[in-house]
This record gives sequence, C-alpha cells and structure tokens, in this order.
Amino acid sequence: MTPERHQRILSMLAHRQPDLTVCMEGVHKPHNLAAVVRTCDAIGVSAVHAVWKNEQMRASGGIAAGSQNWVDVHNYTNTKDAITEIKKQGMQVLVTNLSDKAVDFREIDYTKPTAIILGQEKFGASDVAKEMADQDIIIPMVGMVQSLNVSVANAVVLYEAQRQRELAGMYGKSTIDEDTRQRMLFEGGHP
Amino acid sequence: MTPERHQRILSMLAHRQPDLTVCMEGVHKPHNLAAVVRTCDAIGVSAVHAVWKNEQMRASGGIAAGSQNWVDVHNYTNTKDAITEIKKQGMQVLVTNLSDKAVDFREIDYTKPTAIILGQEKFGASDVAKEMADQDIIIPMVGMVQSLNVSVANAVVLYEAQRQRELAGMYGKSTIDEDTRQRMLFEGGHP
Ligand SMILES: C[S@@+](CC[C@H](N)C(=O)[O-])C[C@H]1O[C@@H](n2cnc3c(N)ncnc32)[C@H](O)[C@@H]1O
Ligand SMILES: C[S@@+](CC[C@H](N)C(=O)[O-])C[C@H]1O[C@@H](n2cnc3c(N)ncnc32)[C@H](O)[C@@H]1O
Repeated sequence: MTPERHQRILSMLAHRQPDLTVCMEGVHKPHNLAAVVRTCDAIGVSAVHAVWKNEQMRASGGIAAGSQNWVDVHNYTNTKDAITEIKKQGMQVLVTNLSDKAVDFREIDYTKPTAIILGQEKFGASDVAKEMADQDIIIPMVGMVQSLNVSVANAVVLYEAQRQRELAGMYGKSTIDEDTRQRMLFEGGHP
Repeated sequence: MTPERHQRILSMLAHRQPDLTVCMEGVHKPHNLAAVVRTCDAIGVSAVHAVWKNEQMRASGGIAAGSQNWVDVHNYTNTKDAITEIKKQGMQVLVTNLSDKAVDFREIDYTKPTAIILGQEKFGASDVAKEMADQDIIIPMVGMVQSLNVSVANAVVLYEAQRQRELAGMYGKSTIDEDTRQRMLFEGGHP
C-alpha cells in the first residue's frame, strides 16, 4: 500500500460515525442501492442494513450495495430482525414516510445515535417498519410529484445529519471500533 | 379538472422560484435526468436547462428529462449558449466541481438569483462551464469515494437553497410569470 493510500484510509476511519446508519427496506434498483451506499460512505456511515424481500432482489441488489467495499452491508430477510438489531444498538429509529404524523426532517437531533429507514421505490416503508420506528420524518415538497427518488431522500437527510454532527465536533474523533479499523486497513492493502 | 387538482396546481404555482435553476451539462443517464427534474419540481424550480453533447443522448435523455410535465426543459447543443442565456437572466452561476478553489456549498447565498451547473456522470463539468461560472462549489465528503451521484449532488445543493429561501420567506409569493401560470393551469386540465 502506498503511503498516500494508507493516509487516505486513516483519514476516512477517523471520520467514521458508527452511531449513524441507514436501513434500506426493499430498495432494489441497483442504481439506487449504489447511490445510497456511495452517499453513506461520503458522509461517514460505516455500516448499513439491507432487508431483501426475496432472493432475486438480494442477488441483483446485493452486488450493487456491496460494490462499495468501504461500507459494511448487514443483510436481513425481514424488517423485524433488522430493526430489532438496530434498536439493540440503542439507536433512535426514524422512518422516512410521507404521512400526516411525520415531522420535518430538520427538526430531528441527529447527534444522537440514529438509524434512518428508507422504503421501497414503489411502495415505500412497510407497516412493520412504521410500527417499530420511533418517529416518521418527511422532506418538504412543494411541487406536483408525490415523492423524491429514494437515494435523493437518503442524501438530503444524511447531509442534514452531517451538518449537525460537524457543528457538534463529531468528525475526526476516530470512534470506530478497533476490529473494523484493523480490517479496513488490512483490506485496503489487499483489494 | 377536479377542484382538488386545480387547487394543487395553484399551490404549486405559488411556490415556484423562477430565479432558481439548474443546468445539466451532458448528464445523460435517464434515471439521473429523471431524478434531477423530480427534485427540481419538489423544491419549486420551474425551468431547467439541458446541454446535450450529441443527438443520441438528446434522444434518450430528453424523454427522461421531459417526462416531468411540470418543469420546463430548455435544450441547448453547447454549454456556451446555455450559460450565456442564464447570465442574461441576471443569475449567479455556480458550477459543482471537485476543485481546490471550490467553496463549501453552504457558504453560498441562494436567495440571490442562482443557477447551478451539474456535470456529466463520468467527466464532470467542462472547461467552458468552469471558465464561465462565477464560483465553484463543492459538497464535503469524508469517505473513500471520489464523488457523489449527480442527482444526489443536485438534491443536496437544492435543499440548502430551499432551506435558505424558506427562512427568507420566499415561498408562497407567486412570482412566476403570467404566461407560464396560464399555460400550466391549461395543461393541467388537458394532460
Ligand atoms: C418513491 S418513495 C415511495 C413512495 C411511496 N408511494 C410512498 O407513499 O411511500 C421511496 C422512498 O423514498 C423516500 N422518500 C421519498 N420522498 C420522500 C420525502 N419527501 N420525505 C421522506 N422520504 C422520502 C422514502 O424512504 C420512501 O419510502
Ligand atoms: C460523478 S460526478 C463527476 C466526477 C468527475 N470525475 C469529476 O471529477 O468532476 C458528476 C457530477 O456530480 C456532481 N458532484 C458529485 N459529487 C460532488 C461534490 N462532492 N460536490 C459537488 N458536486 C458534486 C457534479 O455536478 C459532477 O460534475
């Protein structure tokens, strides 16, 4: 590994936010999966969760999601298991949902340990996700379209989280666990 | 047209921001074009500009960009013509560009008349665009990927513009010109 690449990986690791994550619930278009994970990497999300509604989606979508070596993808076959695991980690669970009880996404405190649930391209988040989540959030829209593209919605919320965490001095603190750190440094030298 | 639909169109028109626009320079993947225009509609951009590098891209991309009936698409065959037209309208021209002289996108005052130039998926913005623009802007990234998806970058910048304009009380003022207003109301009744 060149010294430059080593430095680059160290810097990336120092900015990782292990207590901020995304759960993709049935998102399955490869370009959306790839764009979600790419944005996660860019703002420092170290691991995401993916719920696959069937084997076919997992097969095609898993590759797109996993093409990003630098973000770990945890896979599930149902939503309940995914959210149960996330809650075990002490995170507030926010579901992006175009409902009346949803609050504006900017009202949330993202400096708390947070997981954001993204719904499927066509049908949105499931009833199970909506029941298990602590809060519905919505990105305001004033046009004629009914919703945003899912990777766009993910980015708008994550960059608000990035803004708040940057202001709170949460970047550059190297809070990622030592195992992940060692693994990333090792894999970065053996791509 | 039902009274509900009529109301919906009136509300959309009241929120339109004619002095905020996007110029897609060679963006050509249909899903990206569609996602850019969809986000534009959602935050109140009434017209976008598209520079097509060749006829083939225009043929496939034009449909994706135009599928959104509610946002006007102005087409060009070269960047110079597009930016010249935009400058005639008195807009500050910002180019999203991963350069050293780029400023953080949040430092910009988006309450001014503003055009945001988006670069091509693979090669980014052209030299002509970079020369003609008033300012380079960048969205900060702390991961390993080199860049964001173009429709994601568009959304992150536009939602910052929306935040600033909302705070400044610029929504709900019906500043769109009477011609566009009449046309949209007419077309909304004859889809
Ligand atoms: C295309 S939308 C799904 C639309 C679906 N018909 C519904 O009503 O939920 C796909 C996903 O993008 C996200 N999304 C899109 N627009 C959003 C908005 N304005 N606010 C919050 N999330 C949004 C949500 O995660 C949603 O499940
Ligand atoms: C995939 S990028 C192009 C990358 C290209 N290799 C370059 O260096 O410009 C496509 C477009 O997305 C936008 N973009 C992506 N990431 C960005 C960022 N971090 N800041 C500003 N714009 C970005 C720009 O419009 C860019 O031209």
